Amino acid sequence: MSRALIIGAGGVSNVVCHKCAQNSEVFEEFMIASRTKSKCDEIKDRIESGIYAGRSKITTAQVDANNVPELVALINEYKPDIVINVALPYQDLTIMDACLETKTDYVDTANYEPEDTAKFEYKWQWDYRERFEKAGITALLGSGFDPGVTSVFSAYAQKHHFDEIHTIDILDCNGGDHGYPFATNFNPEINIREVTANGSYWENGKWIETEPMEIKREYNFDQVGKKDMYLLHHEEIESLALNIKGIKRIRFFMTFGESYLTHLKVLENVGMTSIEPIEFEGKQIVPLQFLKAVLPDPASLGPRTKGKTNIGNIFTGIKDGKEKTYYIYNVCDHEECYKEVGSQAVSYTTGVPAMIGAAMVLTGQWKKPGVYNVEEFNPDPFMEALNVYGLPWQEDFNPTLVD
Amino acid sequence: MSRALIIGAGGVSNVVCHKCAQNSEVFEEFMIASRTKSKCDEIKDRIESGIYAGRSKITTAQVDANNVPELVALINEYKPDIVINVALPYQDLTIMDACLETKTDYVDTANYEPEDTAKFEYKWQWDYRERFEKAGITALLGSGFDPGVTSVFSAYAQKHHFDEIHTIDILDCNGGDHGYPFATNFNPEINIREVTANGSYWENGKWIETEPMEIKREYNFDQVGKKDMYLLHHEEIESLALNIKGIKRIRFFMTFGESYLTHLKVLENVGMTSIEPIEFEGKQIVPLQFLKAVLPDPASLGPRTKGKTNIGNIFTGIKDGKEKTYYIYNVCDHEECYKEVGSQAVSYTTGVPAMIGAAMVLTGQWKKPGVYNVEEFNPDPFMEALNVYGLPWQEDFNPTLVD
Repeated sequence: MSRALIIGAGGVSNVVCHKCAQNSEVFEEFMIASRTKSKCDEIKDRIESGIYAGRSKITTAQVDANNVPELVALINEYKPDIVINVALPYQDLTIMDACLETKTDYVDTANYEPEDTAKFEYKWQWDYRERFEKAGITALLGSGFDPGVTSVFSAYAQKHHFDEIHTIDILDCNGGDHGYPFATNFNPEINIREVTANGSYWENGKWIETEPMEIKREYNFDQVGKKDMYLLHHEEIESLALNIKGIKRIRFFMTFGESYLTHLKVLENVGMTSIEPIEFEGKQIVPLQFLKAVLPDPASLGPRTKGKTNIGNIFTGIKDGKEKTYYIYNVCDHEECYKEVGSQAVSYTTGVPAMIGAAMVLTGQWKKPGVYNVEEFNPDPFMEALNVYGLPWQEDFNPTLVD
Repeated sequence: MSRALIIGAGGVSNVVCHKCAQNSEVFEEFMIASRTKSKCDEIKDRIESGIYAGRSKITTAQVDANNVPELVALINEYKPDIVINVALPYQDLTIMDACLETKTDYVDTANYEPEDTAKFEYKWQWDYRERFEKAGITALLGSGFDPGVTSVFSAYAQKHHFDEIHTIDILDCNGGDHGYPFATNFNPEINIREVTANGSYWENGKWIETEPMEIKREYNFDQVGKKDMYLLHHEEIESLALNIKGIKRIRFFMTFGESYLTHLKVLENVGMTSIEPIEFEGKQIVPLQFLKAVLPDPASLGPRTKGKTNIGNIFTGIKDGKEKTYYIYNVCDHEECYKEVGSQAVSYTTGVPAMIGAAMVLTGQWKKPGVYNVEEFNPDPFMEALNVYGLPWQEDFNPTLVD
């Protein structure tokens, strides 16, 4: 029997926990732990009154994921076979430290970023390779959708469809509509940072930097329709550039609506996204915090979001001496996700692969001492599991390419 | 010798006080009074260190313009010949009440609006007609630029250029640029109300209502250039429809930039212009109040605003049996205004006519018991004074018409 400790109690954790319960043959027992125990209890209650009730033995606990001794004490007490980290990216290293100290396998969905620099890089976590190897434990990095499934798609394309992959375009489209003029699924500051940061892509062995939102394309997404998308830096480019041999170019595009970008820009212009406190009626108030209080509660978006996400990869390369193109993607429906687990597709598409990644390690299929990205393992069992656990994929052997 | 009491200590008051000092032959003494005496003292200090120093005897006082007995006590103590009201429009009626009680002449620049309904109408003030007449005192309403100069322009056109005016288009263009992505000269809530309210114009004896911002035109303004302008309701239409005999249509257009409108719309969308308090960190906070605290201080705009305003009227009608068109307007330079009096053109164009209107009453040229709008008096001395006191006007006998 296997036992997992899931750290974090947000929307993604809610999905991971539901999916662990669905896959209770592997996850016979799991514990949900976060700083606020009541949020863990809510997830537990939701599972136990839903379609996956009565399958896994679920417990909850309070833990501060920034505090290594607290994490170590909880791991020593619960003795999980694996820790699934769906807390904040700032907390990856403390949780990895606690796993090292207790010799427990580790999975996460987003790479570490220092709270102050906002620099997405694998360096911090790759530095743990030797220590994890020596400890005989596995760390599986970035097992969400992007990064995560997009990298497994790449390994799958490499294994079954190409002798040589020349280009990868990762296309992340959210065609969801929550009906508000403006709302964010998560911290608007991270959104702002994303659209105001320089973009970058990998070409001929080096990074090419672009101006923020400089490269814009329109793409006609299956089951969503035409959307504007913009080239952004994204973390899986860094690992795919190392792990896909012979790759010439990797780009990442994400869709943003005109109106969404306008709202973000205006809020930035007037200073409402600033994290510098201002004096207001004798109190220090951070504008961004006040903005969050005015905007719709992200938790309120789930039940009202309609439409679909479409995320996948377009490959070009050579097979049997001939040029070949290949597009593999998943389409996910916000309303169906919400009906099944009480979270919409943005959380769903991240949470399902986190459960699958953990299952890969627990069942021994991806168990290997060290620190790994998902594309370094055999993609086939993961690809099968995507079809079983709610993220079926589709293929197109003649896709429209992005110019 | 004449003595004026100026109530209010904002940007417009600053201009009125400077201009009274410039015209010290009429305004030998004046008092500046407002809720915050220190703001009155600042204006006094600014005059006494500027180009109009040492001309009028200036005093200051504290007064609550909502409080009739306080106003009466101050008037009885200072014994002004006229009260110039440049406080808030909400305070017109209390100040008129105090003038009635003390038999003192009255001038203002904007018509009364009840604080809760935001309905601009002359009705409230026209209801004082009989009482002012019986008391033997004059109330001169709306002696700013628009309303004010635009109505004097109409009386002047009527007197000198037309046998019959058929149409009046009032065009208010602010081509100023303060260099911020977004800032407001005054309460952003009033801006929002202006652009989200239905527009209306007068045609063939009745009001025609439009959707908010429904009627948009481009106009090429002298010394400013091409600007988008939108049809709005504006208060002088109401009195001009009564006072310009035979008029068939009166419209009012104001320029707004695309970016300005986008900023307002986004801030409204996200709830930042709401006046409903929200709970934030245990405190009730009105989003609009917080927004005002984040936006640039209006007082900081003056020294950095460049460019010009261009406000005037285009008339069509009949003279000596022939069709005639006539455009009269003033162009005002933000930087020159600031250099002269320490306020930019928006305050300047309102403050100068307030001083002139008061001078018209004090010198007896516009002295007549009752309540009057400016177009009911002989325009000629007022028009001369505009040229003397910083708002020279220009004429065009072949203007481009607004379709």
